[in-house]
Amino acid sequence: MGVMIEGEDVLLPPTNFSMVERGIYRSGFPKRDSFAFLENLNLRSVIYLCPEAYPEENAEFLKAHEIQLFQFGIDGKKEPFDSVPKDTITVALKILLDVRNHPVLIHCKRGKHRTGCLVGCLRKLMNWCLPSVLEEYQRFAGAKARDTDMKFLEMFDASSLRQCLYSIIYRYQGSAIHNRRLIYTEENLHQKRITSN
Amino acid sequence: MGVMIEGEDVLLPPTNFSMVERGIYRSGFPKRDSFAFLENLNLRSVIYLCPEAYPEENAEFLKAHEIQLFQFGIDGKKEPFDSVPKDTITVALKILLDVRNHPVLIHCKRGKHRTGCLVGCLRKLMNWCLPSVLEEYQRFAGAKARDTDMKFLEMFDASSLRQCLYSIIYRYQGSAIHNRRLIYTEENLHQKRITSN
Repeated sequence: MGVMIEGEDVLLPPTNFSMVERGIYRSGFPKRDSFAFLENLNLRSVIYLCPEAYPEENAEFLKAHEIQLFQFGIDGKKEPFDSVPKDTITVALKILLDVRNHPVLIHCKRGKHRTGCLVGCLRKLMNWCLPSVLEEYQRFAGAKARDTDMKFLEMFDASSLRQCLYSIIYRYQGSAIHNRRLIYTEENLHQKRITSN
Repeated sequence: MGVMIEGEDVLLPPTNFSMVERGIYRSGFPKRDSFAFLENLNLRSVIYLCPEAYPEENAEFLKAHEIQLFQFGIDGKKEPFDSVPKDTITVALKILLDVRNHPVLIHCKRGKHRTGCLVGCLRKLMNWCLPSVLEEYQRFAGAKARDTDMKFLEMFDASSLRQCLYSIIYRYQGSAIHNRRLIYTEENLHQKRITSN
């Protein structure tokens, strides 16, 4: 959390920006006028969920700050229930959960549907009950909430993913005594890295 | 962030729950069925923004977990522009910013108006531009967004608060090199503590 030093410029977060968990942020597509804000997040990686090529000025921003780009091209127009292959979400979740990639920003175009689906799957993995998962999805999607996305979230089975995660770290700040660390066996972990270089 | 251990119960966050910043959460009024979820946050304090007495079962939960209660009785029915004295918000902000109180949960009844105003003032102090402050307010208030709250946020002057803060710590995870710490002179700091005991 940064509090302004007198005279510093006003900061513009990307549209639909929010913290998801410690080390995990979400937003709509960041434009140039949000780069100053993003610099303060000290990101290590970006999970980008659109099929379109990353714009040159965004790619340059990532390169200048040594931020890794993970791209998962999910078509935003198709119905997510058809077009979000569970495999894609599963690989994206593994990238998302890997603390070596934190702080990480998840974004698509508007930060509503594709980003909302990935965050919703994370919440299921965190064992949030379905109504709370959907409430969060709807908070960001607003009037654009899609029944198909919510059906996707309802149907997503997080249990299979739990079996193949390499390392999941239970982290709550200020609670070192309560921190729990689980190490899973490394199997079926094939991280797909698509870099901006 | 916690990922479920096979067989653990499903967790129910309070309504309108979200992380604001590292160590700062917001929500509507937590009911008993959310206590298991709240336990995992390892809270040190709660900022409660309603004038009504804290329900006994909630007070017992706080006591059992050694969580400090800071109550600021802001009337939820009056127009906030009239009823939220700047002094009250200023004292609440000092409690909120003090990392010794973190992790902290801010809540009122629905987590929309009073909580939204306090979080919005925090964002102004963090130097977010007004449209982003209002976007976040509206995301939680939804169809219940109030023009008077948004006017309050527009008019709130964070600059006077900056002069009297005791200690503000710039913290971004995973960025030790970039961390900045500012120590302000201790003046005008009168923390009002209302405990649950």
